[in-house]
Amino acid sequence: MPKSLAHRFRVDDGAKFRLKDWDPADEAGLAKDEAQALLGGLGERMAELQDQLYAQDRWSVLLVFQAMDAAGKDGAIRHVLSGLNPQGCQVHSFKAPSDEELDHDFLWRCATRLPERGRIGVFNRSHYEEVLVVRVHPAILEDQKLPPALVTQSIWTERLEDIAAFERHLARNGTAILKFFLHVSRDEQKQRFLERLDEPEKNWKFSARDIVERGHWAAYHAAYEDAIRATAAPHAPWFVVPADKKWVTRCVVAAAIVERLQELGLAYPKVDARAKAELEAARAKLMSES
Amino acid sequence: MPKSLAHRFRVDDGAKFRLKDWDPADEAGLAKDEAQALLGGLGERMAELQDQLYAQDRWSVLLVFQAMDAAGKDGAIRHVLSGLNPQGCQVHSFKAPSDEELDHDFLWRCATRLPERGRIGVFNRSHYEEVLVVRVHPAILEDQKLPPALVTQSIWTERLEDIAAFERHLARNGTAILKFFLHVSRDEQKQRFLERLDEPEKNWKFSARDIVERGHWAAYHAAYEDAIRATAAPHAPWFVVPADKKWVTRCVVAAAIVERLQELGLAYPKVDARAKAELEAARAKLMSES
Repeated sequence: MPKSLAHRFRVDDGAKFRLKDWDPADEAGLAKDEAQALLGGLGERMAELQDQLYAQDRWSVLLVFQAMDAAGKDGAIRHVLSGLNPQGCQVHSFKAPSDEELDHDFLWRCATRLPERGRIGVFNRSHYEEVLVVRVHPAILEDQKLPPALVTQSIWTERLEDIAAFERHLARNGTAILKFFLHVSRDEQKQRFLERLDEPEKNWKFSARDIVERGHWAAYHAAYEDAIRATAAPHAPWFVVPADKKWVTRCVVAAAIVERLQELGLAYPKVDARAKAELEAARAKLMSES
Repeated sequence: MPKSLAHRFRVDDGAKFRLKDWDPADEAGLAKDEAQALLGGLGERMAELQDQLYAQDRWSVLLVFQAMDAAGKDGAIRHVLSGLNPQGCQVHSFKAPSDEELDHDFLWRCATRLPERGRIGVFNRSHYEEVLVVRVHPAILEDQKLPPALVTQSIWTERLEDIAAFERHLARNGTAILKFFLHVSRDEQKQRFLERLDEPEKNWKFSARDIVERGHWAAYHAAYEDAIRATAAPHAPWFVVPADKKWVTRCVVAAAIVERLQELGLAYPKVDARAKAELEAARAKLMSES
């Protein structure tokens, strides 16, 4: 395994970020036949670290997954995180907002789903949809019940600024944030859509809506580029993960998570002298039972 | 009634704010014998505006009340807001945080209680406690389960910055925010504490803890001054409300709310031609019932 598999896909300063500089078919210097074993090892290490995260109960971890359709979000979440203890891992998939959610600011529904200390929270789609699908489809913005005076030309800049401030606040208060953009090519998406149409057991994954969204490819890419530029930060980096080869995607995502967890200084809580005495007293009481 | 009763107590730029420039005994140019009638009129107007706020369903209103003990927060909330329709008004009193709340960032518990569009939310104490009581009593900060590396000298500056960004975000998304600091003098607090001790039916309001907090008067005032300096903004102004005379406090708070509601451009939703046709069809159907 390379010393840091994830590092070269990490963006923590968006100033010069351009999506076209990134290759969706990058193999990350990995050989495919080693990838499965690598992923297995990363999964085991991740489970160990999760146990310490839970025991220490100070940090929370937020993993944000964003991508074009068929880029492999659901598969990455399943394959990378399946070895975790579900008691300490919560996945939330964000769909179209409910009436109650529309009655609040756009970050509200994400804030209410944030992971507690000691836990890993996964956002399958996230607050970023507010500057992606909403930006590509202005009709959605019209349904958000905002006072008209507040809907101005600068709304996307403002939203990105608010997202960046929200994430900075979370990071300052003990949330380690990792954001994954699974970067699939237009050609690979086409192949995957065709598979979904051809193979009966994959039909359920396809919706006519997917073709409509595919028609907005350039607008989505422009919105993603803007979002990454405005919100990449050392405390909340983006990973632009090559997604044309699923085995690459999964190894890079797993490595990024393990590397970040290793930086947190996780450890089982130390037992001090007084607590040790309590443990010994408990042992004595148990042993004295007749 | 003065054209704008609340304006002179409004701080929307904290740069030069100093608490000692403000007089807790200010009577706001009001005569006491007119105050009751004035408050009644403001209450009626507030109820009319609330009905439009609810019908229009675009803006929400957040009223934050902060003060030293016995400054009259609870009384102001009761007297100023009692004429509102409770269906559109939610009061939340923030006490010591729960375990679940401590497992999240410090804004989380406030975010989950934000008013929905069309409604007035009242925070009796608020996220500001995080830079007031927590700042005055560092032991509370130690119980907040933050990763130790994140607790630095700059934590109060960071918290104030995060609060300001949070409120800016809310304002951009349709929350009208008003923050009231009920400014009571140390002498008046003493008188009110003595009343609570002397009058049996007021005994329940007194706690021995109140005297301990009174001992931290200067530290609290310094923390309030810092908070107001850092978070006063045109979209989230503070009102430094004289609180030595309760009738002044209540009139100023009521006036501030009414004046802000009047600026929002509230109106009952217009019924367009199509909706009108639907109403007429409904009328015809009702009339045709045998």
